[in-house]
Amino acid sequence: MKRLRRWMNTLMLGLALPLAQAATANAAVERVDPPHWWVGMREPTLQLALEGPGVAALQARIDRPGVSLESTQRGDSPNYLFLQLRIAPDARPGPLSIELAQDGQPRQRLAYELRERAPGSAQRQGFGPRDAVYLVVPDRFARGGSAVARPDPRLDLSDRVDRQDPDARHGGDLEGIRQRLDYIAAMGFTQLWATPLTENAQPRYSYHGYAITDHYRIDPRFGTLDDYKRLADDARARGIGLIHDIVLNHIGLSHRWVADPPTRGWINRAAGRERTNHAHISVQDPHAAAADRDAFVQGWFDASMPDLDTRQPLLATYLIQNTLWWIEELGLTGIRQDTYSYADKDFLARWSARVMAEYPRLGLVGEEMSDHAPMVAYWQRGQANHDGYRSSMPSMMDFPLLAALRRALVTPEGHQQGWYSLYEALGLDFVYPDASQLMLFPDNHDTVRMMAAVKGDEALARMAFAFVATAPRVPQFFYGDELGWRGPDPRQDGVLRADFPGGWPGDAGDAVSGRGLGEEARRMQDWLRRLLNWRKGQPLVHGGRMTQYVPRDGAYVYFRHDPLKPGCVMVVLHKGSQPLAVPLGRFEALVKPGQPARDVLSGRRFNLGQALEVAPRSVTVLEVGEPGP
Amino acid sequence: MKRLRRWMNTLMLGLALPLAQAATANAAVERVDPPHWWVGMREPTLQLALEGPGVAALQARIDRPGVSLESTQRGDSPNYLFLQLRIAPDARPGPLSIELAQDGQPRQRLAYELRERAPGSAQRQGFGPRDAVYLVVPDRFARGGSAVARPDPRLDLSDRVDRQDPDARHGGDLEGIRQRLDYIAAMGFTQLWATPLTENAQPRYSYHGYAITDHYRIDPRFGTLDDYKRLADDARARGIGLIHDIVLNHIGLSHRWVADPPTRGWINRAAGRERTNHAHISVQDPHAAAADRDAFVQGWFDASMPDLDTRQPLLATYLIQNTLWWIEELGLTGIRQDTYSYADKDFLARWSARVMAEYPRLGLVGEEMSDHAPMVAYWQRGQANHDGYRSSMPSMMDFPLLAALRRALVTPEGHQQGWYSLYEALGLDFVYPDASQLMLFPDNHDTVRMMAAVKGDEALARMAFAFVATAPRVPQFFYGDELGWRGPDPRQDGVLRADFPGGWPGDAGDAVSGRGLGEEARRMQDWLRRLLNWRKGQPLVHGGRMTQYVPRDGAYVYFRHDPLKPGCVMVVLHKGSQPLAVPLGRFEALVKPGQPARDVLSGRRFNLGQALEVAPRSVTVLEVGEPGP
Repeated sequence: MKRLRRWMNTLMLGLALPLAQAATANAAVERVDPPHWWVGMREPTLQLALEGPGVAALQARIDRPGVSLESTQRGDSPNYLFLQLRIAPDARPGPLSIELAQDGQPRQRLAYELRERAPGSAQRQGFGPRDAVYLVVPDRFARGGSAVARPDPRLDLSDRVDRQDPDARHGGDLEGIRQRLDYIAAMGFTQLWATPLTENAQPRYSYHGYAITDHYRIDPRFGTLDDYKRLADDARARGIGLIHDIVLNHIGLSHRWVADPPTRGWINRAAGRERTNHAHISVQDPHAAAADRDAFVQGWFDASMPDLDTRQPLLATYLIQNTLWWIEELGLTGIRQDTYSYADKDFLARWSARVMAEYPRLGLVGEEMSDHAPMVAYWQRGQANHDGYRSSMPSMMDFPLLAALRRALVTPEGHQQGWYSLYEALGLDFVYPDASQLMLFPDNHDTVRMMAAVKGDEALARMAFAFVATAPRVPQFFYGDELGWRGPDPRQDGVLRADFPGGWPGDAGDAVSGRGLGEEARRMQDWLRRLLNWRKGQPLVHGGRMTQYVPRDGAYVYFRHDPLKPGCVMVVLHKGSQPLAVPLGRFEALVKPGQPARDVLSGRRFNLGQALEVAPRSVTVLEVGEPGP
Repeated sequence: MKRLRRWMNTLMLGLALPLAQAATANAAVERVDPPHWWVGMREPTLQLALEGPGVAALQARIDRPGVSLESTQRGDSPNYLFLQLRIAPDARPGPLSIELAQDGQPRQRLAYELRERAPGSAQRQGFGPRDAVYLVVPDRFARGGSAVARPDPRLDLSDRVDRQDPDARHGGDLEGIRQRLDYIAAMGFTQLWATPLTENAQPRYSYHGYAITDHYRIDPRFGTLDDYKRLADDARARGIGLIHDIVLNHIGLSHRWVADPPTRGWINRAAGRERTNHAHISVQDPHAAAADRDAFVQGWFDASMPDLDTRQPLLATYLIQNTLWWIEELGLTGIRQDTYSYADKDFLARWSARVMAEYPRLGLVGEEMSDHAPMVAYWQRGQANHDGYRSSMPSMMDFPLLAALRRALVTPEGHQQGWYSLYEALGLDFVYPDASQLMLFPDNHDTVRMMAAVKGDEALARMAFAFVATAPRVPQFFYGDELGWRGPDPRQDGVLRADFPGGWPGDAGDAVSGRGLGEEARRMQDWLRRLLNWRKGQPLVHGGRMTQYVPRDGAYVYFRHDPLKPGCVMVVLHKGSQPLAVPLGRFEALVKPGQPARDVLSGRRFNLGQALEVAPRSVTVLEVGEPGP
């Protein structure tokens, strides 16, 4: 049975078998999306998108127990046909044959497949505050020599490889990441987020992956779907979950939908290729002009990225199924959704609701690049919005807290400034239904690096990293953070996304072995490794209550604790250039003199006194236990 | 009847009549707060605070139809006695005699009075978006020679008058304001807010009025209660409402409660005189340490301003009644409440609920000096807060939008900056239950002036004023704004609150007649007068819908309109240093070529074309009407 299925997979993966050689210049299905599906999904319907010259002229018939063809839909192009199937709850996995006829003549038999889901698939645990996420840009991380698939000759894969050109491809691949999973795990990370791996057959700037040209194919330059599966499996074996990056808002200009859209309105503002106005606030603004709101949502993110009209039901279902397909196929722990607010918000609500209905504990994180907490909170699950809008997103990226963190670090201490900005911004957590599910990061592939924001000040960068790792959030780090990378400021994407040392043969240094790394890079790497590995085993940081104190004397002090249990984690971030004795009396609700403490970064053990001595410009993380007998 | 009541008022205003000369060193009531009350209030209970040496030893008895003494309460001091009365809905106005006995012996008869309310008192219309508010600092506005009351010899009125000293008293008074009501009305203002007029018998810095030493007395240096009533009456006659400034959070150090608090905890942290930490966010912050939250609310605002513990029921009722007393006594249109979030939030909820229950259409505006909209929104009536907190405040001061306005003016135009900051901040209106009720201001007595914030740039200041006057808000201006005053930067309160020219005999200039004013001052005054007088008659600015457009080419364009009626108000604020032709096509939902337009500042009439030409660095306000036949 298993061998049979594997054989069939090989044969049928999205392929159409021409029925006899009878047909002349007649309609022929060349592709079916999704390439396969599963029985036992919560949602019983399945939309199959059939593609091929003239396929809209075909009639379909299905005769299989547990599966019915409910309707057939055609768009404006002759080259697409959409079948709406219903799969019974008790349908058995196995092949599904779809008979296609034209003018009453049998034309083609499609061998589709309904698979069995992995055990516990629906109830999988997604990423959350107990995790630490490592973000890589696959083209820039490491080259491992993934199997180079024989790509479709129609694909434009001309974007050149040139490691000297920050905007060209550098050749990193899936195998390169897979080979470094031990390193990632050893650093203390438990989740891996790679920027998009799906095909970007764009002639230029294809490396970043956000101009998708095929929603169901891994870009051949990264490897194959099997490479991706191998990465997922090997990661899982090391306790690392996989977060897949998707784009609902737009596609790449080379996507086949641009030349041949299934329906006339499939792509927004296709004629004028009008750009978005980036007016995020127009979505929520009660005073926004409708024209501006439309321009924001319907405008193109970039001249090379046509905007999808997700109000189109066929397209909406196509994209929703695509997300579900990757989750189920790869065993993902989560999805990162790009340019969140740029898509139609009603579609986003449907999309997030459907994904969470299928996988109630999955991680979903959306990118709303705004420094205003209410704008980010608007998109989180559980928010009672002014306009009745209901999202199902468990998580969003926490740009507002990142902005406050940076402001706090670079602004001198003073009345309601310096650390106070961070203290206050964290206090704004009340605007979120659940702030602890937000993803906080010192930087990512779209921001200036934290080290640049603090002008290369290693001590300040450590405070930032320590905050990210101990705040009530899902922490995310960007490859290279652990090496103290500074990167460009202002933003310069191709340079920011530099090659990870040792990822290519002949590299002068190697981040994994440490060979050839500078002293500062090794120091930061070692420090972050200790912090994150400690974090892994400390449930108070995963889910304990946060209690913060008004910053004083250049020091910001907060605790993670469980009101029902003794002991706590105490964090002191001290910006001052002098040693500081922090009197503990203020914190008597949480710590008392005499309690045993362990400095988790140095390993030093001691008993608390009346005050805690901290070094200038330092991070102190203590585990404070019960007083001894 | 009327003459009788007037005679009784004179005789009885808060005075106690010693019963015979019998008493030796016995208890004697010297004061009753409130000094009088009214029948027909919605809330039937009335708390009378009796004060005098040893009065806690007295027993009270009331025998009057419609009034019952429900209970008597004593505090920790022997010198206060609190009577809880109930006034029947059908109680008649007139004298109320309170018999006081000690050890069974009659001691004193208090002649109290229950008055009749003014017709329509409860349903009076408070200030709102149809108004424009003028804020004055009475000590600094004008000296008119108010009647100088013979002050209580125990009062410390030693704070010297010295117009050369920015922190001393300058001698402005109620009569000075009253004499300038015609000026205020002619400027187009419809509401007058004076900083506190209540007694501040403090030895220093008494001029600002926020260190109240008697909740029921007008400071003798400003005049008498009768002067205040005359001001209120004369203002009302000119269509100007009166907003009274009160302080619930603290008192002045010379208040009699400091030496002799009615109950032990009446004043917070009296022993240590600990200052507040100013951590506003601690009120809402789910992570705030309880100790910090307490320190914020219970700490003293200033060493000269003891903090009241409004959790004390006797004090809470005292303060609530005090607010109601001023509203009813003066016929106020509103209350401005200082240092809002510094007071106990449960008390604030009770206070605002009670005031709004008595006067459902009154204006109440609270000062939450924070740039974060969610923190301000927390306090507005109708906000469904995360912690279940319910406020009844119709209005708060809009510090967040003020901050954005200033940022917008001083930051160069660019991607998501310059005007965009303002556009975005206004878009955040969705966080408020009703943003249109917020009070927006270019500056007030506690901020750097707008003109200083824009570095003396008259054109930018006009844009700021125009925005304040045409945004969906209650606009408030600060005396001197109309003269283009710049004031100090950074903040220096005594200098900021400079003397209004012509307010004192011998002043070199006179803002009312225009004599001796500089050219720039006269220009600004004339311009603002035209703007505000136009505003007065334009209902679309009072309550029309706001529609704003993404700023472009240095110009911010928005409209006030009524979707059910033709015509609109169009505002163009143009920061660029070149003339600009603003294409009108973008705004086709609101204006069309051919429609008649009137420039309300120049009076020019014309028909709209395809584009609107605006001058460099200009404010354009148009009334656009229906197209002609």
